Amino acid sequence: MCLFVEEVLLEILLIIVLAKILGEAFERLSMPPVMGELAAGLVLGPSLLGLIAPSSELELLALIGSMFFMFSAGLEVNLKLLLRMFRRGLVIAFSGALTPFLLGILVGYRYSLTLLESLALATCLSITAIGLSVRVFMDLRLLSTKVGISVVNAAIVDDVIGLILMSTVFTLAFEELEHYNALIALSASSAFLIVSFLLGAYIHRSVRSRIRFGKVLLMHTRKSSTKLAVAIAFTVLFGLLARLCGLHEIVGVFIAGMMLRTILGEELEREIIDFTLAFFALFFFAYLGVLTDLRTLAEVSWFAAEVVAVAFAGKIIGGLVGGLVTGLSPRESLVVGIAMNNRGAVELVIANAFYALGVIMAETLTAIVVMAAVTTLTTPLILKYVVSLLGFGDSRLRGVSW
Amino acid sequence: MCLFVEEVLLEILLIIVLAKILGEAFERLSMPPVMGELAAGLVLGPSLLGLIAPSSELELLALIGSMFFMFSAGLEVNLKLLLRMFRRGLVIAFSGALTPFLLGILVGYRYSLTLLESLALATCLSITAIGLSVRVFMDLRLLSTKVGISVVNAAIVDDVIGLILMSTVFTLAFEELEHYNALIALSASSAFLIVSFLLGAYIHRSVRSRIRFGKVLLMHTRKSSTKLAVAIAFTVLFGLLARLCGLHEIVGVFIAGMMLRTILGEELEREIIDFTLAFFALFFFAYLGVLTDLRTLAEVSWFAAEVVAVAFAGKIIGGLVGGLVTGLSPRESLVVGIAMNNRGAVELVIANAFYALGVIMAETLTAIVVMAAVTTLTTPLILKYVVSLLGFGDSRLRGVSW
Repeated sequence: MCLFVEEVLLEILLIIVLAKILGEAFERLSMPPVMGELAAGLVLGPSLLGLIAPSSELELLALIGSMFFMFSAGLEVNLKLLLRMFRRGLVIAFSGALTPFLLGILVGYRYSLTLLESLALATCLSITAIGLSVRVFMDLRLLSTKVGISVVNAAIVDDVIGLILMSTVFTLAFEELEHYNALIALSASSAFLIVSFLLGAYIHRSVRSRIRFGKVLLMHTRKSSTKLAVAIAFTVLFGLLARLCGLHEIVGVFIAGMMLRTILGEELEREIIDFTLAFFALFFFAYLGVLTDLRTLAEVSWFAAEVVAVAFAGKIIGGLVGGLVTGLSPRESLVVGIAMNNRGAVELVIANAFYALGVIMAETLTAIVVMAAVTTLTTPLILKYVVSLLGFGDSRLRGVSW
Repeated sequence: MCLFVEEVLLEILLIIVLAKILGEAFERLSMPPVMGELAAGLVLGPSLLGLIAPSSELELLALIGSMFFMFSAGLEVNLKLLLRMFRRGLVIAFSGALTPFLLGILVGYRYSLTLLESLALATCLSITAIGLSVRVFMDLRLLSTKVGISVVNAAIVDDVIGLILMSTVFTLAFEELEHYNALIALSASSAFLIVSFLLGAYIHRSVRSRIRFGKVLLMHTRKSSTKLAVAIAFTVLFGLLARLCGLHEIVGVFIAGMMLRTILGEELEREIIDFTLAFFALFFFAYLGVLTDLRTLAEVSWFAAEVVAVAFAGKIIGGLVGGLVTGLSPRESLVVGIAMNNRGAVELVIANAFYALGVIMAETLTAIVVMAAVTTLTTPLILKYVVSLLGFGDSRLRGVSW
């Protein structure tokens, strides 16, 4: 008991301190902090120091961490903005998601992965990290240009596409794993998604039309801590329901976040996001680093290199084509494609879930982590270089005129 | 893996929902919410429904919960107020702590407990719940009277006395358990306490004299999530250091909370307390309910009844004497004694720590939980009755004139 407590506290301390230090360091170098947190896990885990090994305690903290993270991600998705700028975002997102998806299937075929593993790899390749894209455009002061808004919208639609792809793969995986009746599983998860979205739409219309569903949900709660508890319980409930419908818990949690977005109020939203970034999410991303053994990278280096190449080619070409089709200039389309090459937290969560279910092997997980790391680390640099090369000064001044 | 996640999520959901519902219900009945959270554990655990059994996952969540709770409790201790009203608080606190302590030793002797277990029981009997006392006086609008301020001060000093008693018992326990050299263990824990308090005093003087230690500690952190992570890491570090010095981790965590009180800023303090009340602490108190099997109460009923009787007699007589000695009127002194009979969260944390170390048996834990429940549930009612009987209308108007 004594040893257990000391060991757990030491691991928690090491993870918080190193993840935050590296996260802040990466941020100062204009790189996303999540990569620093991942790096902390790589440093502490078997890849380098070997101080922390996978354990059931850390697995539990990582589970809670992934749920809080996906809930926070859901909280940040603006459904209204998504609907207003639907058309261009839709085209760019589809083009930018399907190209790497198809290329991913091809890579899986070349390396004789199972169809399910190929689909999982392709899904991870096709998701753009919305938070990172927004962050890069803010840093470059391009957020309110045609290009910036196109990318933000495409990234949001891309998340939904990712959600559908992910749900499909999870449904197929659960079916294989537990010999569910495929039809029942598919119906259950479709029903869950449809009911969730209808409920979400109802909640948002209620809030907008001042019927105040939020007040009904949180009617008897004067204290913010009780509101917070209700929100967390609602989220865990949705995670559990998703799980029972044959989907992964993070799908339900993400949907719960989108539903609660306008209800919780800014203050509680900020509290949840603060605590997630300061505590919960660290365990998830660091644990992912602990699970990734970079010493196996030598064995999978060609496979990983090909996955990285496909990630670059798929997103940049897909984004470029989507931009051109919807009437952006060639240089604007190129910037859209490069910006959408950001990967990040969400596909790491998904890849980890695939790995835990046995859908993908350790080599594929390592390749996806490497792919996320390389694309995320290089995109800000490439984007800055291309923008200064092509000269976006005028476009910046034009603003949102379309 | 699938079953594991579903089971954990279901347990988390049940605990959050039932603990919050019962907590709110108790609060509306003018009883402290913590008793409702404990009741949730009793309902879900082996005592009633048997839905949740003790497990290593819940133990981890309870550990994290107890640390966040004691950190929050530390955050709420006002060192400045404590020092200003030192004398009367000191006398009442000593009188009100030593009387039940001595009676507790006596009960332990009567039931042939070991000296260590008797000391542990006596420690749990001697601690007043500051939060609950303040709450009761606020509800009765007696907080800014002589009586109210005396009780609040005595309760704060009582916490420090409890800390010293608890540290001593822990040191003795660790010594017995691990055959430490008693002298080294005592020196280490004394050194820890002294260094912590000196560091705390330095931090608080720095903050007051505008040298801004806080800014040094949190110098490079613009974001609140990073400040929060630093505070949590600092707290875990202190818990770990306390543990390594032969004290219990919650002692270190409590001290860390007191140190960070004026540094974190109101917003972050509120965030931590919100999250603790909405999430972390629920697991601790509910788990305590799960660990307590009320079906064994029949076997220990005489012992438990005697512990409850001693708790009442010790605090009320001790508080009464302390009040009289420091110049309060007899009726004021009686109210002080009754108000100090509140027990609550802190001794449950300590009792659980004692139990986990094997210092106290399951029967003693059950008796302490029953004692905490009975004193906490009856004190508000008795206090209201006595106050209306004795008529405190005039005293209330006098305010803080002494």
